[in-house]
Amino acid sequence: MSILAVGSVAFDSIATPSGRVDNVLGGSATYFSLAASYFTRVRLVAVVGDDFTAEHENVFKKHGIDTRGLEHAQGKTFRWGGHYLENLNEAKTDFTELNVFEQFQPQIPREYMDSKFLFLGNIHPTLQTAVRSTMQQVRLTGCDTMNYWIKGTRPELTETLKLVDVLLINDTEAKMLASETNLLRAANKVLAMGPQSLVIKHGEYGATIFFREGAFGIGRHPFRAPTLPIDEVKDPTGAGDSFAGGFMGYIASQEQLNREVLKRGLFYGGVMGSFAVERFGTERLQSLTREEIDARFQIFRELTHLE
Amino acid sequence: MSILAVGSVAFDSIATPSGRVDNVLGGSATYFSLAASYFTRVRLVAVVGDDFTAEHENVFKKHGIDTRGLEHAQGKTFRWGGHYLENLNEAKTDFTELNVFEQFQPQIPREYMDSKFLFLGNIHPTLQTAVRSTMQQVRLTGCDTMNYWIKGTRPELTETLKLVDVLLINDTEAKMLASETNLLRAANKVLAMGPQSLVIKHGEYGATIFFREGAFGIGRHPFRAPTLPIDEVKDPTGAGDSFAGGFMGYIASQEQLNREVLKRGLFYGGVMGSFAVERFGTERLQSLTREEIDARFQIFRELTHLE
Repeated sequence: MSILAVGSVAFDSIATPSGRVDNVLGGSATYFSLAASYFTRVRLVAVVGDDFTAEHENVFKKHGIDTRGLEHAQGKTFRWGGHYLENLNEAKTDFTELNVFEQFQPQIPREYMDSKFLFLGNIHPTLQTAVRSTMQQVRLTGCDTMNYWIKGTRPELTETLKLVDVLLINDTEAKMLASETNLLRAANKVLAMGPQSLVIKHGEYGATIFFREGAFGIGRHPFRAPTLPIDEVKDPTGAGDSFAGGFMGYIASQEQLNREVLKRGLFYGGVMGSFAVERFGTERLQSLTREEIDARFQIFRELTHLE
Repeated sequence: MSILAVGSVAFDSIATPSGRVDNVLGGSATYFSLAASYFTRVRLVAVVGDDFTAEHENVFKKHGIDTRGLEHAQGKTFRWGGHYLENLNEAKTDFTELNVFEQFQPQIPREYMDSKFLFLGNIHPTLQTAVRSTMQQVRLTGCDTMNYWIKGTRPELTETLKLVDVLLINDTEAKMLASETNLLRAANKVLAMGPQSLVIKHGEYGATIFFREGAFGIGRHPFRAPTLPIDEVKDPTGAGDSFAGGFMGYIASQEQLNREVLKRGLFYGGVMGSFAVERFGTERLQSLTREEIDARFQIFRELTHLE
């Protein structure tokens, strides 16, 4: 079934110990959509400027991503510049030019209104709430956020979280959101804020999903999926968004919506994140095959599988 | 089969956000031996001072740990003081009094010479090499080390590593030993130094085992075992030694020595590490049952098990 993805499309300039690129296609909705497109149909809602060409839009179209919700505004597309030092887990921002993204008001095309899955990318929580409220046929809503919103718009974010089925954040964000240093206690506090489940992304160590009592099945045991250690991380940009795309894309491709499906989704999230970082920008995500994805899924599965 | 464990026995004074204890029984060989004692017979080689009482020794004896190799020297037992702030992954040392440990020369009792498993705790690599060379019937040697030896005695450590079947270190130590920031490349460099396999401990994220081509079976795929997030880490001291004790203890308890056994050992390592941190010092390790251990093993297994 189709996923509606709302978020940013950007041009990124990135330097890592492996090299640098300038003004390459990026943004949270871009990574998410490309990753999810290997599993299901994706519908995009985002804004770009007049520097965004038909060639850029073709990257989406080639993957069957519906761009009728991609608004073309006057001005320049969102631009981000950043670099990574030896610690590839931490991006250092060089510049952020919001440009047309500053006034972004997501407009949902009528043709998208029957979407059963919704991913609220990392935008202002008030916009996330508005989109969620508009979509009346959604079965599952995934949501991302970041330190900036946790610090600056906590009351608005608290409202958003009540409407969310899966919140996807990293360790630092979870601990900040819960004001709690222990991961399990942080997870329980975040779940008490409203989401049915919480995915905490641990970067190169994988991710853990925590459930509210009774959400998607019986019991409260968390589940953890690993990632495979890979020998060269060229560019970590977009790994988290690609994770979300693999996770949500796989879930949307399944008939059932239960814990076993979410667990497999967690593995597919790790798979897509691990592909994303192998090349700069979205290069690797543009060139994958479903066979490559499933082969890596098997490797990840064997990575923690006891006879 | 029996494991011979060589390392430190100490009195620790520890402060964490959950409280503090003074002069409690600790040391790498203590945590290791107690953890391993739930799986197999353990033989201890260490040194203590005249402040070490029969009551202290009874902690070992109650767990069937052979203390004939525990040397009683004149002077005080090794003492360590440290504290942890909110980041429980990093110990801050307040004081280190080596005392009788400074002149420690491991003496192996004749009755220990038929040991089939050997664990070289975190001591000077020259002593580790000497002990390994003395033991002629060993089937598998595990080894720990730390930043201090990696920086200060690299040539000696390099010699030790050639004699080791499993090196157990953490992420930081692996990267330092290999002079390499990428974990997989670091692992491959360390394996090229000699050990048949390498266990890298990731703290709350579990551990990964890497194999030399052909070691303990076919292929080179690594294997990763998770740990369960727990809601209160009272005292992280000894978690790594307890991990090693669970890992080596389980392996020594098995007839076969192959990758599947090492994989299960990795899970049992995580189980024992997770118990150790639930209370201060060795308190939790002293009071366990094998049933509790196996119940947690099942939980860990389900934590990453796909149908």
